Amino acid sequence: MDLEALEQLAATQRAVRAFTDQPVPDDLIARILRVATRAPNARNVQPWHFIVIRDRETKRAIADIQSDMTNQPRGQSSPDRQNWADVPVLIAVCSTLPFGEGRAGDAATAGSIYPAVQNLLLAAHAAGLGTVLTTRWRLNEEKVAPLLNLPAGMAVHAVIPMGWPAVKLGKNRRKPVAEVTSREKFGNAW
Amino acid sequence: MDLEALEQLAATQRAVRAFTDQPVPDDLIARILRVATRAPNARNVQPWHFIVIRDRETKRAIADIQSDMTNQPRGQSSPDRQNWADVPVLIAVCSTLPFGEGRAGDAATAGSIYPAVQNLLLAAHAAGLGTVLTTRWRLNEEKVAPLLNLPAGMAVHAVIPMGWPAVKLGKNRRKPVAEVTSREKFGNAW
Repeated sequence: MDLEALEQLAATQRAVRAFTDQPVPDDLIARILRVATRAPNARNVQPWHFIVIRDRETKRAIADIQSDMTNQPRGQSSPDRQNWADVPVLIAVCSTLPFGEGRAGDAATAGSIYPAVQNLLLAAHAAGLGTVLTTRWRLNEEKVAPLLNLPAGMAVHAVIPMGWPAVKLGKNRRKPVAEVTSREKFGNAW
Repeated sequence: MDLEALEQLAATQRAVRAFTDQPVPDDLIARILRVATRAPNARNVQPWHFIVIRDRETKRAIADIQSDMTNQPRGQSSPDRQNWADVPVLIAVCSTLPFGEGRAGDAATAGSIYPAVQNLLLAAHAAGLGTVLTTRWRLNEEKVAPLLNLPAGMAVHAVIPMGWPAVKLGKNRRKPVAEVTSREKFGNAW
């Protein structure tokens, strides 16, 4: 895979929040998760664990937590933002905490989980699937962990709705590189 | 870019710690950073800032901090692990802290930075460049920030040595998907 092809893939990765009813087969999910596990991680500890959720009641319960987190009314659905109960699959990205609790452990764990999350999102996009990354779940673990039977000592980092996009989106919009890059020291123009 | 091509790219992404003397051109770095900026991030805040470091003394000073962090003797160099002073480029991935300090802010910021880091690493690999992701820098900001003239209120998440690989490495080794995936609830076999 050459750089130009990856540039095109990354430029068209968008947050997709509405999906068709077309099912997402297990074997495709397994291929996508395999790409996720190829990500770099500290000392190859591979702290990740993925929970693939299709059960409607679990999806609804997680959606309600997300609605509360984002101060949205529960159960809402619109053409461009589907209620998660109606989304084909939710993938919860969890992990052990091999680097301990606290700020140091959090930083090390995040650095070993989010590269896998991005591999997952890119792989889904390469397959034509839509996803949207939702984070901040570690702040609501006491609510979401019981829904997933998650053991103590494991964290929930991200929940990713996944399905075939109901809408076609163009390239994402980002600041120019020169605006977010410095040479040698911060503030030296690139 | 199709899924099969991304699978191949991700499977061969390895930590490269020794590089040739061949220079890494600015325009290629800019293309790679553009891919980094395509990553998902909360509310499209794009908190990232990249510092491209070629200055030998800065690279050496950062290498010394890394050696102290990892309890290695300073200034070491071996065929498979080059001293950073001799690495063509170091890229420091920094950010503003738009989501505040503390654990909540840290989690949100990490979720908006590490996907860009992984895009950067994949783009470098697609271009034939080698990299190695080093994290935990937020725990040493008081040492590294002055070297980069980093303003207060900005964080250093990762430092990424980059160059043309001195050695050819095969596929990375990862646990099978079935070992790190559950269906519906944690522990239900995939």
